Amino acid sequence: MTVKQLSLPELTEACARLGVPGVGLWREPVQAYGVEAAAKLVRDAGLAVTTLCRGGFFTTADGLDDNRAAIDEAATLGTDTLVLVSGGLPPGGKDLGAARERIADALAELAPYAAERGVRLAIEPLHPMYAADRCAVSTLDQALDLAEGFPASQVGVVVDTYHVWWDDRAPAAVARAGEQGRIHSFQLADWTTPLPEGVLNGRGQIGDGCIDMRAWRERVDAAGYTGPIEVELFNDTLWTRDGVELLEETARRYAEHTL
Amino acid sequence: MTVKQLSLPELTEACARLGVPGVGLWREPVQAYGVEAAAKLVRDAGLAVTTLCRGGFFTTADGLDDNRAAIDEAATLGTDTLVLVSGGLPPGGKDLGAARERIADALAELAPYAAERGVRLAIEPLHPMYAADRCAVSTLDQALDLAEGFPASQVGVVVDTYHVWWDDRAPAAVARAGEQGRIHSFQLADWTTPLPEGVLNGRGQIGDGCIDMRAWRERVDAAGYTGPIEVELFNDTLWTRDGVELLEETARRYAEHTL
Repeated sequence: MTVKQLSLPELTEACARLGVPGVGLWREPVQAYGVEAAAKLVRDAGLAVTTLCRGGFFTTADGLDDNRAAIDEAATLGTDTLVLVSGGLPPGGKDLGAARERIADALAELAPYAAERGVRLAIEPLHPMYAADRCAVSTLDQALDLAEGFPASQVGVVVDTYHVWWDDRAPAAVARAGEQGRIHSFQLADWTTPLPEGVLNGRGQIGDGCIDMRAWRERVDAAGYTGPIEVELFNDTLWTRDGVELLEETARRYAEHTL
Repeated sequence: MTVKQLSLPELTEACARLGVPGVGLWREPVQAYGVEAAAKLVRDAGLAVTTLCRGGFFTTADGLDDNRAAIDEAATLGTDTLVLVSGGLPPGGKDLGAARERIADALAELAPYAAERGVRLAIEPLHPMYAADRCAVSTLDQALDLAEGFPASQVGVVVDTYHVWWDDRAPAAVARAGEQGRIHSFQLADWTTPLPEGVLNGRGQIGDGCIDMRAWRERVDAAGYTGPIEVELFNDTLWTRDGVELLEETARRYAEHTL
């Protein structure tokens, strides 16, 4: 999504050339390209699919069929991790606790289905500014409370710096997640202000904002995480730039600020 | 601030006529009108000044003189409560913990000065979307951790629904604050989406959003709070409307959704 201006062939070619070893994919471009074809494209480029984004929206969706389809797509792509954005309040709803219960119910339906296909579900806590309309799971602790109802091999969490950087309890939650083997994905984006209207597409390039990226990388390392690190930037301004140049810049910034 | 389109005389006249017993004031219009004159105006209208907003910005200000002036103004206005918006990260800063330490240091300087003048300091946790640029204190628990370094008669917290509604730990923190006698102000605003650019002026009219106002009022009641309840809406759209009509609507919504 960081370089959504690139087609899948452009993306895989550029990643391979830059030595980026894996790529997290989103369902829409994969579906448009064809899931089997996308799997072959990435595989032939020598890249791993780190995660598929995203399933979820359990609190507003009518059924779980689309989530089962997402799990199937993840399996076809060869990634072991489906990221979940769990959904906010239903229309007219005011009860975040009830929304979280509905999320737990959906996980109970989906986790065994995913496990049979070799796919883990990764609950992504989203920043509290999205609690109403995108994700009632706002902290790593809440995500872990949900995940603990299942084996770690089936349900874990995403640590995304953009969503958790402000939370003084997040470092302890990272350690807790690590002890349980539940850090299923680690994503980076920086926090920049002012936020844009709708607050969706203002994630900062690594190093442009106020998040101490190296501290977070070291924290997740110390929790025992050895998986891929994704940079996931939603940013209207970055999306207007040349995609390959942006990918090169992102790889540089990643190295500069986390290694 | 809810009806900032009204002058102080228009505001006090309308509050008195509508039976609104008190009003929270902001420093800028009070200074423009004259602090002594504003105090007399409100007193003559039979209104209480519930709080003065705001002191703070400890992490970026050069000194505490302006905060001492705010305390003096609160005393002159006859309110016992100065609301603090504590400040975010200093320019280039990435350490929220260090920012909170600086806030604690400033409180230690100011609390005795305020107490001598009959003014309590009320730390307002702001929504985590303001952590970088406005307030490193993002949760009621953090605000209480800071307040507990001082007597409850000197330093307490603000419970503002807009800032804490998303936090599953906030209900317990309200109870904790109540037990300590540290709820120094209770403010209402509703959460509506999409958020506007800059996310400052999109607070929803009571009942327009997804916050269960009655549940929060009952929660704060149950914690033993018996002080005034303020409605504080920052909203560019509401500010374009007739101020008296908006004040009337706000009083109706308050009654409808909290009583």
